[in-house]
Amino acid sequence: MRIGARNQLIGKVTEIKKNGIMVLVKVEVPAKSKMASVMTEESLKDLGIKVGDKVEVIVKAVNVLLLKR
Amino acid sequence: MRIGARNQLIGKVTEIKKNGIMVLVKVEVPAKSKMASVMTEESLKDLGIKVGDKVEVIVKAVNVLLLKR
Amino acid sequence: MRIGARNQLIGKVTEIKKNGIMVLVKVEVPAKSKMASVMTEESLKDLGIKVGDKVEVIVKAVNVLLLKR
Amino acid sequence: MRIGARNQLIGKVTEIKKNGIMVLVKVEVPAKSKMASVMTEESLKDLGIKVGDKVEVIVKAVNVLLLKR
Amino acid sequence: MRIGARNQLIGKVTEIKKNGIMVLVKVEVPAKSKMASVMTEESLKDLGIKVGDKVEVIVKAVNVLLLKR
Amino acid sequence: MRIGARNQLIGKVTEIKKNGIMVLVKVEVPAKSKMASVMTEESLKDLGIKVGDKVEVIVKAVNVLLLKR
Repeated sequence: MRIGARNQLIGKVTEIKKNGIMVLVKVEVPAKSKMASVMTEESLKDLGIKVGDKVEVIVKAVNVLLLKR
Repeated sequence: MRIGARNQLIGKVTEIKKNGIMVLVKVEVPAKSKMASVMTEESLKDLGIKVGDKVEVIVKAVNVLLLKR
Repeated sequence: MRIGARNQLIGKVTEIKKNGIMVLVKVEVPAKSKMASVMTEESLKDLGIKVGDKVEVIVKAVNVLLLKR
Repeated sequence: MRIGARNQLIGKVTEIKKNGIMVLVKVEVPAKSKMASVMTEESLKDLGIKVGDKVEVIVKAVNVLLLKR
Repeated sequence: MRIGARNQLIGKVTEIKKNGIMVLVKVEVPAKSKMASVMTEESLKDLGIKVGDKVEVIVKAVNVLLLKR
Repeated sequence: MRIGARNQLIGKVTEIKKNGIMVLVKVEVPAKSKMASVMTEESLKDLGIKVGDKVEVIVKAVNVLLLKR
């Protein structure tokens, strides 16, 4: 399967927080960097992921903001 | 300075591709993972970044999609 | 493979317009509805799609706006 | 009224789920395809929609991801 | 017409830059603040706007990032 | 610090609504215009903002939709 997005990282689910219709899923990507995804609880059920599972983290490049300090 | 987003990685600019009003900036984050940002050429000028510069990569968690193979 | 997004439609690529680093891909979904995706030319190459190919159209629900006339 | 987005479908609201400050609105578009929008509860009130209402579903093309299996 | 988004400002088009399939439209909102929208050239044609026209600027709250210096 | 986004306004926090993992932050920008941001409660804690604080409102131009009535 191929995905039309410039950002594709492999990660491991470290935490799932539920409260309301939205859930927050935390993922550890290489070098212990932390990422997070917010999705509906329905999408979480469809994904069927739990802490410890391997997932792919996808972000379209247009949604990536760069800052320079 | 503090930023209201769950995804904040440090990276180094590895390539800048320009063609049209949009530019594609590639960034290497820890563990040699690659990320990319698309922005307007005007934003690139304001940022004032060039290959080799350190940048922060910011993504709101709502714009992160998870997949499970 | 499972995808953490509420909007998943099947479509057929009807047109690809390239000019600059971004490309516009048009897709026909059921009932002859038309949808469109903008991505980088690099993502298009990775996807490897051409007119006539079947694709999946994915949109996170947070990026869907509703209007009422 | 004209809208600057490539994706504009007509649909009918089939379900509204509320819990927390966000709500999930499900919409049936032509050919019985299902779409969904997440918005704030405040936006839902302003929209004034209920199950059975006709709505327009708007998505900017940059927020549409294509996959190929 | 009602719109399901928390950010709705009225503005006036001050500049349109075209190059490639994407265009950049600059808008002056109240108090001389400047905003900008990137869309496909096709969407610009459908909108039919030109410099000096009044437009509405719509942003979903999930796509708004806050910073604190 | 420089930010790679076309929309950067200064505002003052007027209200914070919490319920579930997401929060809604309302901001008054110049000329009494109102804007709003939805973020995770965790991001709100990291930001450390409260009603009355000055914040910067950042939006990438690709996430700005224009309408013409």
